[in-house]
Amino acid sequence: MGLIEARLAELELTLPAPMSRFGSFEPVKLYGGLAYVAGHGPFDGPTPLMQGVVGQDVTVEQAHDAARLTALAILASLKETLGELDRVSQWLRVVGYVQTAPNFQQNASVVNGFSDLIVDLWGDAGRHARSAPGQGPSPFNVPVIVDAIVAVEA
Amino acid sequence: MGLIEARLAELELTLPAPMSRFGSFEPVKLYGGLAYVAGHGPFDGPTPLMQGVVGQDVTVEQAHDAARLTALAILASLKETLGELDRVSQWLRVVGYVQTAPNFQQNASVVNGFSDLIVDLWGDAGRHARSAPGQGPSPFNVPVIVDAIVAVEA
Amino acid sequence: MGLIEARLAELELTLPAPMSRFGSFEPVKLYGGLAYVAGHGPFDGPTPLMQGVVGQDVTVEQAHDAARLTALAILASLKETLGELDRVSQWLRVVGYVQTAPNFQQNASVVNGFSDLIVDLWGDAGRHARSAPGQGPSPFNVPVIVDAIVAVEA
Repeated sequence: MGLIEARLAELELTLPAPMSRFGSFEPVKLYGGLAYVAGHGPFDGPTPLMQGVVGQDVTVEQAHDAARLTALAILASLKETLGELDRVSQWLRVVGYVQTAPNFQQNASVVNGFSDLIVDLWGDAGRHARSAPGQGPSPFNVPVIVDAIVAVEA
Repeated sequence: MGLIEARLAELELTLPAPMSRFGSFEPVKLYGGLAYVAGHGPFDGPTPLMQGVVGQDVTVEQAHDAARLTALAILASLKETLGELDRVSQWLRVVGYVQTAPNFQQNASVVNGFSDLIVDLWGDAGRHARSAPGQGPSPFNVPVIVDAIVAVEA
Repeated sequence: MGLIEARLAELELTLPAPMSRFGSFEPVKLYGGLAYVAGHGPFDGPTPLMQGVVGQDVTVEQAHDAARLTALAILASLKETLGELDRVSQWLRVVGYVQTAPNFQQNASVVNGFSDLIVDLWGDAGRHARSAPGQGPSPFNVPVIVDAIVAVEA
């Protein structure tokens, strides 16, 4: 077991089933030493684990958890593609699109659910540039979608 | 005629006029073996080919066509910059911002209009990581905007 | 003083305090000769310099100024990370997420406030691929958020 998976086990976290394909795209595309990670939500395979608009149907705390579940969904896709999560050497760029109610402003608090887990697992190498825009209605009504660019080792 | 343009001809598809400039930005920026493609919509030069909110003014099927037209607009810009579409060796990352009505959830079905055409033209090399967030009001009221990062050969 | 800072002085522009951290992320992440710049808004350190929905609370002209202030906030972060702004050799890709009122369509005019300043400072090297989607409610209710990928020299 690699270092990252050992740390996940310590935190008593398990990865969900990898992303279901809803179209002609890849959960992860590898090129030039980078992995481009598709937008993921809080899914277990095809099943959304949380749905709703943040600040209306779901609270900030619930949406923070949804962002954390989204991190686990991305890790499941990275593990499926790379075989071993330790091959991710640096997290570079993350966008967290938050499905927000009118006047909602705490996008950053929501996406911290993603970023905090990644930094917990990777340490300084997990720190990344990030945007957290509000989005309109999201695919499958999930509270948050996250995509990423990470560096990978051969 | 290159392989991609031959395939476009087989599909009886023609490219629109290249993107009009609405500001100090480039339709395509080349650097380090990658092409960063600006957000494009379903335009023929300066003219929007479809406008409206998906799930309200335009149907999913119409918006799917808008995403396909957006792919052709991006190909027109890539051809203008690269001279030859065959120089695009891999599609890496795509974001499709869908202008969605409240409660709309079929963002993925819309952006498949883009992705399916690219995979039809490039095969496995066309498969890409993708996000399909809902957006609020879009530039020029187009149903969808797509940007991309692709790998190019010298 | 570097060339870019000399030009800023000529334009009588000063940089704000660098971005305050609202979570486990970096204002700028360096990797592989690129700088991935986090989403910034019109802030002076922790203080938003403009707030509101474009086309409702703030005009296009005001939002254009907000995008220009956002450029200065990004430059402050780049200077903090790189030491010297002249190390930014090319601007590659920019996304400007505009917090838009229903039926607003002039996203491009807003984000030109960002792009025009960058091109003014860097010349052709400042020209970039760009998307300007409408977003739902933004973090801290700022009219616009911008993220970027730029090339840096050692």
